[in-house]
Amino acid sequence: MLTLLATGGTIACTPGKNGLEPTLGAADLLRALGPAAPAPVRARDVFTLDSSNVQPEEWRALARAAHEALRASDGVVITHGTDTMAYTAAALSFMLAGERKPVILTGSQLPLDHPLTDARLNLLRAFAAAQAGVGGVYVCFGDRLISGVRCVKTHTTSMDAFSSVNAPLAGHFDVEGVHFDHPQAYTPPPGAEDLPLRDGIDPRVFLLKLVPGTSPDVLRFVREAGYRGLVIEAFGLGGLHYIRRNLVRALDALAKSGVRVLVVSQCLYEKADLGLYEVASGLGASLVRGGADMTTEAAVCKLMWALAQDDPDLWLSHRIIGEYR
Amino acid sequence: MLTLLATGGTIACTPGKNGLEPTLGAADLLRALGPAAPAPVRARDVFTLDSSNVQPEEWRALARAAHEALRASDGVVITHGTDTMAYTAAALSFMLAGERKPVILTGSQLPLDHPLTDARLNLLRAFAAAQAGVGGVYVCFGDRLISGVRCVKTHTTSMDAFSSVNAPLAGHFDVEGVHFDHPQAYTPPPGAEDLPLRDGIDPRVFLLKLVPGTSPDVLRFVREAGYRGLVIEAFGLGGLHYIRRNLVRALDALAKSGVRVLVVSQCLYEKADLGLYEVASGLGASLVRGGADMTTEAAVCKLMWALAQDDPDLWLSHRIIGEYR
Repeated sequence: MLTLLATGGTIACTPGKNGLEPTLGAADLLRALGPAAPAPVRARDVFTLDSSNVQPEEWRALARAAHEALRASDGVVITHGTDTMAYTAAALSFMLAGERKPVILTGSQLPLDHPLTDARLNLLRAFAAAQAGVGGVYVCFGDRLISGVRCVKTHTTSMDAFSSVNAPLAGHFDVEGVHFDHPQAYTPPPGAEDLPLRDGIDPRVFLLKLVPGTSPDVLRFVREAGYRGLVIEAFGLGGLHYIRRNLVRALDALAKSGVRVLVVSQCLYEKADLGLYEVASGLGASLVRGGADMTTEAAVCKLMWALAQDDPDLWLSHRIIGEYR
Repeated sequence: MLTLLATGGTIACTPGKNGLEPTLGAADLLRALGPAAPAPVRARDVFTLDSSNVQPEEWRALARAAHEALRASDGVVITHGTDTMAYTAAALSFMLAGERKPVILTGSQLPLDHPLTDARLNLLRAFAAAQAGVGGVYVCFGDRLISGVRCVKTHTTSMDAFSSVNAPLAGHFDVEGVHFDHPQAYTPPPGAEDLPLRDGIDPRVFLLKLVPGTSPDVLRFVREAGYRGLVIEAFGLGGLHYIRRNLVRALDALAKSGVRVLVVSQCLYEKADLGLYEVASGLGASLVRGGADMTTEAAVCKLMWALAQDDPDLWLSHRIIGEYR
């Protein structure tokens, strides 16, 4: 048996008096599939939101709902808006790390009742992926299966809106059905307790994407406003400016105040190399960590999640589900 | 005659005691080309920096140097580090908008003296592009020519590090040499004075890339810290969260305080659609502008540049050099 958890999004939208509004629930979505729907499927609505409004509190509710559903069924399909689906997929990847059953997120670029909708096919493929029984958290969109920690929404209007960044596709669909080519692998840090659900999350993480001329005053703001973590999208392999506006000194001060820092590249593809950066700055790896080739989505979610665990540094210093190389 | 302006970057790097350091000047680069170098070329060093340290003040120095050089020569080639080359190209595109001679930026992923270097070929191609005499600001890298307002560094380690985003390549190289397929076109706003150099730039622009849970407190910081402009990388077509953490209300207050706001998508490809966003938020287009399919690099540079002009809104409301559709 599978469970369908609905959360709103374009796939659930119908025309309302203020434009499209998410109104369809899980039972409606199932019903719309008609005889093509797999059976039996349990349907549950977790929340009904445009995914721009999905935030860490919703990730937690969704992780709990998925965990609960997986105790009574063989796999979970989650319908979700596309805007923040990549973030939710990353967050669930960490919260449910080690889950041996499938959690498949899907959605659509056009509402279910649009003549050219992708909703129906995406949803049927997501069920097929869940039925394959491969554990882990994936985004299923178009003919792609993407690991939850490698997913980025790269396109706003194309039907193939999501890309697998710095990793091959986790799987794909063809006439033979679903193929899991590169499933998520869970590697807990040595000594970590084997918990089925780690749904703690601390939203006090700031994302700073640098531009030339970024003033160090934002790093003072980050410290004074009570943030516990910072993800920096630096230049190229991890560069920050330090003439006139000294970001390196300000970052050093921030890290020494206890704020944990992850440095990733603002280039979409390929790695940041903190080694190069450390040489330039003298910052210690214990204060400022390199995110290597992690997506920004995975870096932000991992930091929010790690900060809510008993030993954040244990998790931050370890590659848990292939989120960096 | 052409002019070569050198600014540092990997292309100018040689091994030093702290790793690679930019030490080569324009004359050194020309000399390294040997008999393949075009003649005559005037060589000038504008500054010698890792491009992570290139900021609006350097853009201004470089725009002035390029403008001056173009009074005495037929085209300018600029060597530059790759990390912020896309920002510099966008800034120069606005500062030199209307220039009828070519300004070609290039650089390399490997230093000039590396056995597998791309420096030599990139530099020779940049000269060939400049000799073609097509006006505008371009990045020449690998076999690609990219409009200065469409350029993004998308890869950190690949030799083809730059992409033309939401526009076809401005040109390409093949066995026949250089082809300008889609040159930059300058369209001044009605009534704008025809100036050869607009090098004003206001660095007080903040870039905010949203994540789920971004607190509105950063928008208060932006206002209180004296920023005059804000570029938001919103979700998908332009979404912001407004439950629990009300970014829409905070953005409204910020815009009403006089800070100019440009909304682009955090998806690399395709457009933001402020129309959809306005419906959701009620914000007026005069306060918060949609950046359509502009790159973040072009949006940040255009806002910094427009804020230093006599009538920022005249320039912001107008597509000047194909920077948005």
